[in-house]
Formats: sequence, C-alpha cells, structure tokens
Amino acid sequence: MGRFIQIVEVGPRDGLQNEKAVLDPAVRADLVRRLEGAGAKRIEAVSFVHPKYVPQMAGAEEVMAALPHEAGRSRIGLVLNGKGYDRALATGVDEVNVSVAATDGFGLKNQGLAVKDQLVMLGDIVARRHNAEASEGAPSLSAMISCVWGCPFDGEVSVDRVADMVGAIAEMGVGEIGLADTIGAGDPWAVTKKVEAARAVAPNSTLRLHFHDTRNTGLANAYAGVEAGIDVLDASVGGIGGCPFAPGATGNIATEDLVYMLTRGGFETGYDLDALIAAARWIGEAIGRPAPSALSRAGGFPRD
Amino acid sequence: MGRFIQIVEVGPRDGLQNEKAVLDPAVRADLVRRLEGAGAKRIEAVSFVHPKYVPQMAGAEEVMAALPHEAGRSRIGLVLNGKGYDRALATGVDEVNVSVAATDGFGLKNQGLAVKDQLVMLGDIVARRHNAEASEGAPSLSAMISCVWGCPFDGEVSVDRVADMVGAIAEMGVGEIGLADTIGAGDPWAVTKKVEAARAVAPNSTLRLHFHDTRNTGLANAYAGVEAGIDVLDASVGGIGGCPFAPGATGNIATEDLVYMLTRGGFETGYDLDALIAAARWIGEAIGRPAPSALSRAGGFPRD
Repeated sequence: MGRFIQIVEVGPRDGLQNEKAVLDPAVRADLVRRLEGAGAKRIEAVSFVHPKYVPQMAGAEEVMAALPHEAGRSRIGLVLNGKGYDRALATGVDEVNVSVAATDGFGLKNQGLAVKDQLVMLGDIVARRHNAEASEGAPSLSAMISCVWGCPFDGEVSVDRVADMVGAIAEMGVGEIGLADTIGAGDPWAVTKKVEAARAVAPNSTLRLHFHDTRNTGLANAYAGVEAGIDVLDASVGGIGGCPFAPGATGNIATEDLVYMLTRGGFETGYDLDALIAAARWIGEAIGRPAPSALSRAGGFPRD
Repeated sequence: MGRFIQIVEVGPRDGLQNEKAVLDPAVRADLVRRLEGAGAKRIEAVSFVHPKYVPQMAGAEEVMAALPHEAGRSRIGLVLNGKGYDRALATGVDEVNVSVAATDGFGLKNQGLAVKDQLVMLGDIVARRHNAEASEGAPSLSAMISCVWGCPFDGEVSVDRVADMVGAIAEMGVGEIGLADTIGAGDPWAVTKKVEAARAVAPNSTLRLHFHDTRNTGLANAYAGVEAGIDVLDASVGGIGGCPFAPGATGNIATEDLVYMLTRGGFETGYDLDALIAAARWIGEAIGRPAPSALSRAGGFPRD
C-alpha cells in the first residue's frame, strides 16, 4: 500500500459556484452521491452565502436535506461569517469550513472584512463551536486561507503574512488549516516555502492545500505539496469552477487529473478513476460544457 | 541572477506538425523569427520527414532558406533516418536532433524500425557526423528518446529499458540526450526516477526533457526535472502540437506557461513573457484556433 493522500472534493461548491449554469439542489445532491460513489469521503457540498451574491449556491438546506448523515462520509459547508455558521448548524453539515483571506483587498471584496476583522469572525465561530462541543452533532471545523499565493487586488503575498495568519489560526485551536491559491498564481517552489513556514508555526495542525489551475501550475503545486509532506488536497471533479471575485481564475485542479498523477506515482487515494471520469462527463452535460479536465478527454494510462 | 534553464522551443516543429492547418514555409519562418524575438536561442524549426506522412512539415528547405545563420542562434532539424540527415546537411541546419523510440511498437509505427534498428540508424548518423566533424559547418547532434514514460502501443516502459537506451546512446558519444514523454502519460515521481537512472549511465551527457501535457502533468514533470538537476527543457509556444502517431496526445507544455512557472520560481530563461504571449496569440490566429496555453488566456501574475 502506498502513502494515502486524502482528496477533499470541492466540485459541488467551488466548482459549481462559478459556472454560468445554475443547478437545482436535487442535481447538486445527485452530484455529491455520484462523487461518493467514485470514492469521495469528504465533499464540500454547500456554501452558506447569500443567494443574491452566489445564486449557484442557493438552497444549501435542500441539498443537505437530500443527504442524510452516513458513517464515514463528511459533507462540508463553506461559511464566510457567523450568519453562515448559524445556517450550517441548522442544516447539520458534518464539517464547517471557514474562509478567511490573506489580504485586505480580497477580504473586503469577498466578505466585507479586512484581515484582522476576519480573524475576529473566525475566533467567534471557534468559540461558539468550543462551547457547544459537548453537545451532540457539533460539526468539525477547518479554516481555509485564500490568496496565499497572490491576490487579484493586492498582488504579492509574503511568506511572513501567511505564517502570521496560520500561527494566529493555530492558536485558536483550529485542527485543520488550508492554504488556497485562489487565483492560480502559485509556483511549486513557493508552495514548498509557504508549506514549510506554515508547518513551523502550526506543528500540531493538519495542513491542507487548495489549488486552481489558472496558470497551469496546479498539479506541479500539488506535487510540491505532497513532497513537502501534505496529506490533504482539494480538487474539483472535471476541473470545473473558479471564484466570481477572482478575475481570470479558472477551475480547481481536476480530481481525476490529481488521482491519475498520484496513482501513477504509487499513492493511494481511495478513488476509482473510471467512475470519476464518468462523473466528470455527467457534470459536463449538466452544466452544458465539457468538463475541462485532461483525464476526461484523454483517458488514463494506455493499456498494453 | 537565478539558475538558468534553457528552453528549446519546439513549436514550429512538434507544435505545427500536429495542427490541422498546414502553414506555408514563409509563415513558419516568420514564427521562428517571432520566437527568437521573444528570447528563444534554440528552436526546432523543421522536420526532415516525407511530406506524404507529415504535410505540415513540407518545405523544410524553404523554411531554412529564409533563416540565414546567425551567431548565437541555433535552428534545429528533426531527423528520423539517414535520408533525413542528408536533407539536414544540405539545408545547413545548426543542429540535428535524431529521434529514436524507446519501444518497438512506436519505433515501427513512427519510423518503420524496431529499437535495435533505430540504434543502428543513429549510430550510422553519429559516425557520419564524426567523420565530417573537421569540415566546416557540421551540425551539432542530439538524440531524443520518445515514449520514455509510456507507449500508446506497448504500454509501460521500464526504467531499465530507458537506462539501457541512454547508456547505448551515450556510448556513441552523443553529447545531449533527450527523454520525451511523447504521449503525456508521465508523473513527476517517474520523472525523477528515469532522470536519475539516465544520469547514472550517461554522466558526461547533457540530459534534456520533453513533455506533453496530455494528462495535465506536464508542468509537474518539468518541475520534477528541474529539481532533479535538468537544465534543458523543450516547450512549444501556445502549447500547440502533439504527435500524429500518438493517439490522444495533445500539445507540448506551453513555453509561456513554463516561463511563468520558472520565472516565479526565481529562475532565468532569457524569454520575455509578454512577447511570448503575443507570439502564442499570433500563431493561434494563424492556425485558426486559440492557443491552448494557460498564460495566453489568463496573463501573468496580477500587478499590485
């Protein structure tokens, strides 16, 4: 058995959120089921944002209602503030992922909060969850820092800025901290540097990486992350998606492309590549454009 | 100054060879000039194959006639056999690149020669060049091994097979030996392994890498190669191209995507990214489809 790399499937959220097509909650729940059928254990299924801003994510409650709890499966809800956390609790998601930006420019545009105010917002949610932890059904919590490898508004983001934020979040007691290349500007050498800096200030937190393929460096960045010891990576079925507030961003790295690379490299992912490719083609039909992933076009390694 | 990585531009040959559009020799020479204007010093400009098989490469003599020798610039001609070498000598290319396949399946399909016969063919060319070396104008010579990370006909290609071939070619005295992922099936861990094996048997040869992006691993593979000490990489402007005999293969890694990644990583390439993107868009218009590279769509790092 090779080393296991956990892939968090974010297609139903980060993927669909930036597609022009708006899919019904029932179709989005169907996508979650298909991805689980292909091997996904953790799926970012919904986002608790106002439907005025992101109509693609409207009806999170309906999506979750169609997905009753199941042992061994985790459905994650993205949360940008305390109001979103209220909705997440009410719908009974298994996990909450709180997004905080590494830059004031992106934080203000995406969430109306500068970095220091986002950290206060996150701290409040962490405290609420801590107080409720004894009660049954408190969701697990992770934080994802956006714009770690560059901001569309503020440009360069320093290693020190990232380390400061990771350190502050680790001190709150958040067990899993993600670093996101929201606009797909990162390079693998910078991935190594920022992962090492993050680990130094958060030795007891699990680090997770989230890459977009805007400048074609997504899989190189994932490889660098794995080589730097990262065991948790986000990816989106079909490579669909992006971010409506990040100009020029294209989709996340494609789950099937990542699974291909890792499997060929001798790693375990728990995914079935053929089933993933089938799910990618299915979602491509649902959104009305072919999934942009390489594997859904080229297929896997040629057979003897 | 960062470490220098030499990028051999292969768009005019490996790129255009697999496009549906057939461009006139004058247009192909124009492309070479534009790429040289963007910083390319070594360009695979022509292929000496029979126009019956690859009409896109017809008129190699006319392309070269439009490109008189210039100090500091090297125009490379691809050669598949002794007859191609005759043509290369007659046109006065600065360099000859001889292609040999790592598998019988690909060698027979692409060149009508099994591996052992291809090595004899290469040996004959090396001998001819050696005998002529004293004469003025003998082109420099490199060999490129195709299908190093997988064959569309024979499937897996072992590290031992690659090492045997590299060792045999190094023994002939070939100074630069390329390893090509012709069908874009490689992963970065396999790149590291095969580069290390090649270096062990050819410590005095320069190793060069050639990746296709068929399964989106091209830049990850390039990164792994650079980390393994490789200083020479092929790429194709706009990411155009492929191989007519490799089903499902898509373009080479795009020069501008590679330049972006390397530049962000602190390396020197000698290329001007904006000029490269302009050349990519120009060739996209000439072939009648947008260049598939990421950078020609997304642009470089966002400015502050």
